[in-house]
Amino acid sequence: MDPLTGALRPRHDQPDPAALIAAAHAVADAARAAILPHFRSTGLVTEDKGVGRFDPVTEADRAAEAAMRAVLARLRPDDAILGEEEAAKPGTSGLTWVIDPIDGTRAFMSGTPSWGVLIALTDADGPIYGLIDQPYIGERFEGGFGRAALSGPQGARPLATRPPRPLSEAVLFTTFPEVGTPAERAGFEAVRDRVRLTRYGMDCYAYALVAAGQVDLVIEAGLAPYDICAPIAVIEAAGGVVTDWRGRPVHGGGRALAAANPEIHAAALALLSQVPDA
Amino acid sequence: MDPLTGALRPRHDQPDPAALIAAAHAVADAARAAILPHFRSTGLVTEDKGVGRFDPVTEADRAAEAAMRAVLARLRPDDAILGEEEAAKPGTSGLTWVIDPIDGTRAFMSGTPSWGVLIALTDADGPIYGLIDQPYIGERFEGGFGRAALSGPQGARPLATRPPRPLSEAVLFTTFPEVGTPAERAGFEAVRDRVRLTRYGMDCYAYALVAAGQVDLVIEAGLAPYDICAPIAVIEAAGGVVTDWRGRPVHGGGRALAAANPEIHAAALALLSQVPDA
Repeated sequence: MDPLTGALRPRHDQPDPAALIAAAHAVADAARAAILPHFRSTGLVTEDKGVGRFDPVTEADRAAEAAMRAVLARLRPDDAILGEEEAAKPGTSGLTWVIDPIDGTRAFMSGTPSWGVLIALTDADGPIYGLIDQPYIGERFEGGFGRAALSGPQGARPLATRPPRPLSEAVLFTTFPEVGTPAERAGFEAVRDRVRLTRYGMDCYAYALVAAGQVDLVIEAGLAPYDICAPIAVIEAAGGVVTDWRGRPVHGGGRALAAANPEIHAAALALLSQVPDA
Repeated sequence: MDPLTGALRPRHDQPDPAALIAAAHAVADAARAAILPHFRSTGLVTEDKGVGRFDPVTEADRAAEAAMRAVLARLRPDDAILGEEEAAKPGTSGLTWVIDPIDGTRAFMSGTPSWGVLIALTDADGPIYGLIDQPYIGERFEGGFGRAALSGPQGARPLATRPPRPLSEAVLFTTFPEVGTPAERAGFEAVRDRVRLTRYGMDCYAYALVAAGQVDLVIEAGLAPYDICAPIAVIEAAGGVVTDWRGRPVHGGGRALAAANPEIHAAALALLSQVPDA
């Protein structure tokens, strides 16, 4: 206990929301500046990360992660960093920035403005703040510390998820029709066959649309932590629910179910929880 | 023959490109103003046009077509109009405006900025000018009368399609994985199985990305004239080729193959031309 204030932990361990939010926006601004010169440029350098899987990495991806880490080194030197491109950086504050400079590199390669910069702040229990930025559109979705807001080309507005509706009226997104393993695909298709409309190809932008009250469900598999931490924070701040396919926390990655509200989450989970563990 | 000028047709029959381009932009501006208040609004009214097919019509669609027709009535009273929502309007100039206020109503309903306003100007031989507008992003692609240009949130630039590359390196788009009839779907899948990357869900925005040099191929079936006339003009002005699956003009609708260049058009056509006529 702190003998002066009576607080259980020293004051410097308490997160300062204003400073953290400002840092997140500074990181997102740095990513925008690093990425935009490369978007839709000709002669974009891409390469495959793995054998047999199409997972390009662009110069933009690397330049942006370096720029994002430089901002964090300046503003948040004691926080840890977990990013897609570089090795994890340990920290001492108990807070970790989980960042993905370009979520949706295939979208990026094909000129589609559905990729995004993902920035999440996590503590020992998971995400506490998240930001999804689409630099080309100039659109930023954020949630956490009591905020859930969008700023974009048509101005600023609060984010709020949709009210409950039956699965038969729901709009579902996933990025590829070929979702994960055969068992995972069957689980996805069980939901797909019940909803009103299924759309593909939106990458992380689909999560932003759940937070913005436009979409009921997003189902994905094979996620890394940096793919899902920011969406969890944004969607939950806007009133939604994000778990794995068993209803457990999913900030560690894997199979994700993002839902606009607890009711439609339960309806989709009843189908997805039939899928055997991988 | 005109006795004063020697021209074969009177001067008032000759299109004035500057006036026509200005009219097209005025029509697009009117559509933006009519549509944007409805995009991502809550309580959007939708209804099904047909039985068993999910084809919503929004208030925005109708309001925009009325606004677009009002601009044409003022600026181009002698031209014909073919639109999605209202009856065709005959004209006397030999020119027809082919308009679709919201191409991609399902995208619109789900908050995705991949729908667009399509405006084409056609003469007896087909499209001579086209415009694809994405109001939320504030992005406008146009082509015809010697122009091929994009203006958007990151400024203005000329449009030019990609140079030739093998099918195995190509990026292919279509809106739904379930393309048309079973035979049409098989044709699409024959191309899909040869390309490097297939993406879904971009609606008319995929055609804009062909013109912008980001995408090699778009394949669609079951199109109406107002779905394809504007993309034809924009893509061809940028160096691409748009035909049906037999290599014939497709401004009348049906099955479309949009390609970045004649070489990749021929490679895809060799596969699609195996599909029997509907």
